[in-house]
Amino acid sequence: MVRLFILWIGLVLSVGSASAQTLTTEMPNPETGRAVSEHATVKSKRIGIVVFPEFETLDVFGPIQMWGRLPDHEVVLVAQKAGPVRSAQGVEAVATYSFENAPQFDILMVPGGIGTRQEVNNQEILDFVRKQDQGTTLTTSVCTGAAILAKAGLLDGHKATTNKLAFSWATSQSNKVNWVGHARWVEDGKYITSSGVSAGTDMSLAVVEKVYGREAADRSASFAEYTWNDKADHDPFAVDAGPGSKK
Amino acid sequence: MVRLFILWIGLVLSVGSASAQTLTTEMPNPETGRAVSEHATVKSKRIGIVVFPEFETLDVFGPIQMWGRLPDHEVVLVAQKAGPVRSAQGVEAVATYSFENAPQFDILMVPGGIGTRQEVNNQEILDFVRKQDQGTTLTTSVCTGAAILAKAGLLDGHKATTNKLAFSWATSQSNKVNWVGHARWVEDGKYITSSGVSAGTDMSLAVVEKVYGREAADRSASFAEYTWNDKADHDPFAVDAGPGSKK
Repeated sequence: MVRLFILWIGLVLSVGSASAQTLTTEMPNPETGRAVSEHATVKSKRIGIVVFPEFETLDVFGPIQMWGRLPDHEVVLVAQKAGPVRSAQGVEAVATYSFENAPQFDILMVPGGIGTRQEVNNQEILDFVRKQDQGTTLTTSVCTGAAILAKAGLLDGHKATTNKLAFSWATSQSNKVNWVGHARWVEDGKYITSSGVSAGTDMSLAVVEKVYGREAADRSASFAEYTWNDKADHDPFAVDAGPGSKK
Repeated sequence: MVRLFILWIGLVLSVGSASAQTLTTEMPNPETGRAVSEHATVKSKRIGIVVFPEFETLDVFGPIQMWGRLPDHEVVLVAQKAGPVRSAQGVEAVATYSFENAPQFDILMVPGGIGTRQEVNNQEILDFVRKQDQGTTLTTSVCTGAAILAKAGLLDGHKATTNKLAFSWATSQSNKVNWVGHARWVEDGKYITSSGVSAGTDMSLAVVEKVYGREAADRSASFAEYTWNDKADHDPFAVDAGPGSKK
């Protein structure tokens, strides 16, 4: 039964995407469900994740896990300067693009971390996310990444959420946002903001569902043996967002 | 209340470790709960995570999230050659150490990913984990990382688990292991092996509990707004391990 299930998953993944420029026909690997020749597949769309010194590790890599095998979206890291960028947990990831040479992304994601305390005052990153946002279909954030989007003015007039342990600081970056204190993630138009750290993984699966459908999101979760908190309003870490705000 | 809770968490983190060589006294940052001068703290112990081409992203970065702020354990990446190593999701992480110049680690962790198909036949990595294992207090794995430990002979006579979608392949690497098909993770002596991908995050919190106690593990989870599956035998992705094996 398990083998049949794996085979079924693999076949769905191999032939399920009509929008990938090159469809692969090889049998999928049982661990990953992807065809062996995946690296030869040209992906037509890009998800760009912005990294900066002291970004929060799981904010970035939870979504990468869930977005890393989509049929026609490639995930790339971008930073002010291309090259290694150190996370708050002390491990370096490599940004492929700089702000200067980055292509237009279809989906933008800004993570949080203690580094956001510097970045909300960094005009380069604020300009970059403003410019990218003009061409994205979705602009997303995890944790205090919402503080950067808010400071850039992108969330003006929108509902949004952020890290619950840093809620006061993050929400102080803009009083033009309708901050939501009780939400695992919030979707408002093309803006999808998540609560702290691991909430980003749940949000990233909601993005998969939005773009590729529920079965694809469930597959991404199952491959990672991940129990998805799939309800945007189920928030075990909720806080009081204050008078006038959505709870 | 939330602020008081944060203050309490921070104070516990700041003064809770008698074994760190340098104790910090600054007030903690509310987002991270760590003292501002953390980078100046000399950590006396190391957790070494082995990376190789096509490692599975969350296998590595879920545990790094949970281990990245322990008072006296630094987390480092090690690979056959130091430098950037590409994950199965296409993003590069930087290995600080090579097999040749790596120090003895206190805790070793081997992740999974499609790259393990090559690595089980790589004498360099098998020799490296065997050598490290002689000096570790804990030797751990996530996902098909257990296949590497098994092939190296380290799990002979022990109970262990691995990725459930790749269970047949991984367990075929050694018939001297008592493979467990129903387990989020398995602890047997100093060997702690977890099931697939996100199970590693749950296992990493069990390691925090083992070394620093339950409160520290709960704090690591709460900081990441993570709902910990804290029961080793609660496995939503269990498989039949076959006759003679523990279920």
